[in-house]
Amino acid sequence: MAERENTDPQKMEKIVSLCKSKGFIYQSAELYGGLNGCWDYGPLGVELKRNLKDYWWRKNVQERDDILGMDGSILTHQAVLTASGHVGGFSDPMCDCLLSKARLRADQIDAQTGTAYHYTGASHEESEWSIERPFSVLIDPTANQNENNARKVAKQYYAQFLNDKQIAPKKLALAGESTTEETDTIQYNPENGSLLTEAREFNLMFQTKMGASSDDNDPNAVAYLRPETAQTIFVQYKNVLDSSRVKIPFGIAQIGKAFRNEINPRNFTFRSREFEQMEIEYFCRPEDGLRLTEEWLEKRLSFYEEIGVPRTKLHVLDVPDAERAHYSEKTYDIEYEFPFGIQELEGVAYRGAYDLGKHQEHSGKTIEYFDEETKERFIPHVVEPSAGCDRSVLAVLCEAYDVEDLTKEGGKKDERTVMRFKPCMAPIKAAILPLLKNKPELVAKAKEVQHLLQPFMNIFYDETAAIGRRYRRQDEVGTPFCIAIDFETLGEETQDGQDLTDTVTVRHRDSMEQERIAISDLLPWLLQRIR
Amino acid sequence: MAERENTDPQKMEKIVSLCKSKGFIYQSAELYGGLNGCWDYGPLGVELKRNLKDYWWRKNVQERDDILGMDGSILTHQAVLTASGHVGGFSDPMCDCLLSKARLRADQIDAQTGTAYHYTGASHEESEWSIERPFSVLIDPTANQNENNARKVAKQYYAQFLNDKQIAPKKLALAGESTTEETDTIQYNPENGSLLTEAREFNLMFQTKMGASSDDNDPNAVAYLRPETAQTIFVQYKNVLDSSRVKIPFGIAQIGKAFRNEINPRNFTFRSREFEQMEIEYFCRPEDGLRLTEEWLEKRLSFYEEIGVPRTKLHVLDVPDAERAHYSEKTYDIEYEFPFGIQELEGVAYRGAYDLGKHQEHSGKTIEYFDEETKERFIPHVVEPSAGCDRSVLAVLCEAYDVEDLTKEGGKKDERTVMRFKPCMAPIKAAILPLLKNKPELVAKAKEVQHLLQPFMNIFYDETAAIGRRYRRQDEVGTPFCIAIDFETLGEETQDGQDLTDTVTVRHRDSMEQERIAISDLLPWLLQRIR
Repeated sequence: MAERENTDPQKMEKIVSLCKSKGFIYQSAELYGGLNGCWDYGPLGVELKRNLKDYWWRKNVQERDDILGMDGSILTHQAVLTASGHVGGFSDPMCDCLLSKARLRADQIDAQTGTAYHYTGASHEESEWSIERPFSVLIDPTANQNENNARKVAKQYYAQFLNDKQIAPKKLALAGESTTEETDTIQYNPENGSLLTEAREFNLMFQTKMGASSDDNDPNAVAYLRPETAQTIFVQYKNVLDSSRVKIPFGIAQIGKAFRNEINPRNFTFRSREFEQMEIEYFCRPEDGLRLTEEWLEKRLSFYEEIGVPRTKLHVLDVPDAERAHYSEKTYDIEYEFPFGIQELEGVAYRGAYDLGKHQEHSGKTIEYFDEETKERFIPHVVEPSAGCDRSVLAVLCEAYDVEDLTKEGGKKDERTVMRFKPCMAPIKAAILPLLKNKPELVAKAKEVQHLLQPFMNIFYDETAAIGRRYRRQDEVGTPFCIAIDFETLGEETQDGQDLTDTVTVRHRDSMEQERIAISDLLPWLLQRIR
Repeated sequence: MAERENTDPQKMEKIVSLCKSKGFIYQSAELYGGLNGCWDYGPLGVELKRNLKDYWWRKNVQERDDILGMDGSILTHQAVLTASGHVGGFSDPMCDCLLSKARLRADQIDAQTGTAYHYTGASHEESEWSIERPFSVLIDPTANQNENNARKVAKQYYAQFLNDKQIAPKKLALAGESTTEETDTIQYNPENGSLLTEAREFNLMFQTKMGASSDDNDPNAVAYLRPETAQTIFVQYKNVLDSSRVKIPFGIAQIGKAFRNEINPRNFTFRSREFEQMEIEYFCRPEDGLRLTEEWLEKRLSFYEEIGVPRTKLHVLDVPDAERAHYSEKTYDIEYEFPFGIQELEGVAYRGAYDLGKHQEHSGKTIEYFDEETKERFIPHVVEPSAGCDRSVLAVLCEAYDVEDLTKEGGKKDERTVMRFKPCMAPIKAAILPLLKNKPELVAKAKEVQHLLQPFMNIFYDETAAIGRRYRRQDEVGTPFCIAIDFETLGEETQDGQDLTDTVTVRHRDSMEQERIAISDLLPWLLQRIR
């Protein structure tokens, strides 16, 4: 497991900084100090993300007869997420810090630092609080305090806690005293010397109030932002089936946003509160589930290679029994070696009949599939390749990022930053660069080339600065092809006596090599390379 | 204004029904009774919407040098929407119904049905409630009750209201009595015989709680779902400017979801709570604003023609002074003749320096633009063409919908439903139809044609039922071209002695005319027509 911890925080910092300065990704609401866990894609980022999403859609929906697309709403009916188990179970155990009001993940608090001290109310001045209900306190034994001090701290924060919550103080229990009454447990947080409440389940879904009920407690007014796109697919499974005359095995694919109130968003866009998913629910006969899970794993691994994430940097985790969802017979995680560690890009989970079964049970409507050939009725099983879109974009960015040392022997230090995107992913496909901006014929010809290509791909026109500097600027944003319009193009100069009228110089980003291509060949030449 | 009320509810019903049965649009969470104001796009709807969004993006971002894209988060920092005025002012006046708990738009309650009756507490049994603050009641004079009855009803609901809100009852005022104290006004709702509170402002934004504060009243924990994509653009204006080296005039374009807690969602997807916008903020020098507003209006009108909404069905409303936002010198609404009335598709608003100015003021950071040529510093003005994506999709659907009478004289009634999408908007570009499914050579050749085209466009393969019926099925979903593979294709038959080997029959959706095209010509022939 040691190798899994290999990280390169410096590289990550540089990528984050390039993302901002070049317009890939900005912090959301940065102007107002930022909205934690939310990100905005800038002019280049939005094109990169579009390329990725379009490629996924083309490969998984357009080019397959057995997969249909859909696009469901983000706002989600409470009943949907009750059936799926999210309302009851999509939670992390959390402790509240009584001093800072922060809520901390219980599993991230070091259990080794706390030990239980129990007090009875009888040992305190009863006049100060009327104590009835048991109460226990955890105090860090390694912290520099004696038991009396701990009692004092506990008492002080317990009083504060009760006051905050506007509840009457209760009796404290004897150490080890068992009771049938509810117990408030307060733990000592060694980090800031404050006290933590005992762990409580904290739901990760964003809740909102919908409609116009004037009753603040109306349960029907509650809606959620979906925590995954998958459930939208399951609840429309029957509608899609009925309107499309499709037979199993078939899939429903969706790209869309999902939201989780992550306690601790981190690692740039990797763990964020608002994120985009690319999910397929592939419905099949029960006996085909395990086989299809293996097939999907292979397909998805190939996908990442196609977008520029090599197989050697991907790790497949066969999720062990204890860590899989109870309904899943098999789950693979596809992980990538991010600069901040090896982390999940996608899960390929065999979910059985769990989801459709739950929705059939909760909605009271039959979701069974009728197989016309075998005359059987059954709830289809499902294999779910669920990819994180922002994570895939981030992997593509990390993989593309390179700093190349071009220093010549004995020469002065020369480095170039180059984003080695696959051409199909690059935000800008080609830059059009007239050699000089003050030569109208060069500019006119460059604009002509630009307008020839622009309806078919993203083109960037740049006439400022020396051509070498313009090349480097395009390297930094990953433009695979730079097209220079020079005096040879105009027929005003020749190369080794060769007439190069109406040809351009195409400079390749990665090799920095140049070749001459006729303007009339340029569009098909590029189209072939950027797809 | 009479013509504005021309509606065709029957046509609308048929479109809604076709949308569900063919997989364009389903009610969100229909399985659980539906989520009011939210819609899911099915397999055909998602392709139609993708075509529309992609076309908008291509025309407004890819093909223009002066417009950059972005894609911001939906979750929005409270400070952003405070600065923009949404937190304080984005509201409708609402009345609560004390009986049903419904919240009704004050301007939709018929003011003609209510008249004021005022009572003093002295006329009631004072022992029942202690009355101090003025209170007035509106009772419907047309309802079948005498004044005594009205007093009784008012008193009863007033008591209920006070009890619900857990506030102490107050003194009732004399009729016409003026007072500096706050007044509770309760109106009679003739619809269900209950009482309505006086109108209060009800914010239309969806609010949620973000982060892990344990303090339920922590103001920093409040976030909103953006009510428009525009503000995301304004707050990132400076970042985009800094990372893109762009000069004014330039625009930032965004496609994305926005959310409004509409009190009364209606007209299918037209007024929904979750919707997608396609917005451009076009920044310019102050003196160019009005001219650019006119230019954008014309550009946007052309756009709708290009996607299949003819100019004759569009109306331009020059929004009068009193109805424009106070900061807008000029606003045009582009409206379309929906079957439910003439309604807005897009607004083209000249917003001046209002938004950037507000964000500069509230953030305390300078958002000024420095013009290198004139050496001036100023806050750019902005022209905003803001289109409703779902509304445009709906307009395209309504415009495409047609029922054609094909009954021959004296023959039996024959109608076909045909969605006359422009080929660039059609969800499926071509259907591949082997004449017979039990002739392996036909099927093999059809699959060959399918695989030739599928990487470049959405193709539907269909081998079931008679070819005439398959044509009609494609008409219903708007497929512009049906490609039949027949015995002539295989070279097994000739037409008038002509060898038609490796040609196919292309049947045109609108004219139902057929022509023969060589398979080798098919891809360019189609590509030219579907763009």
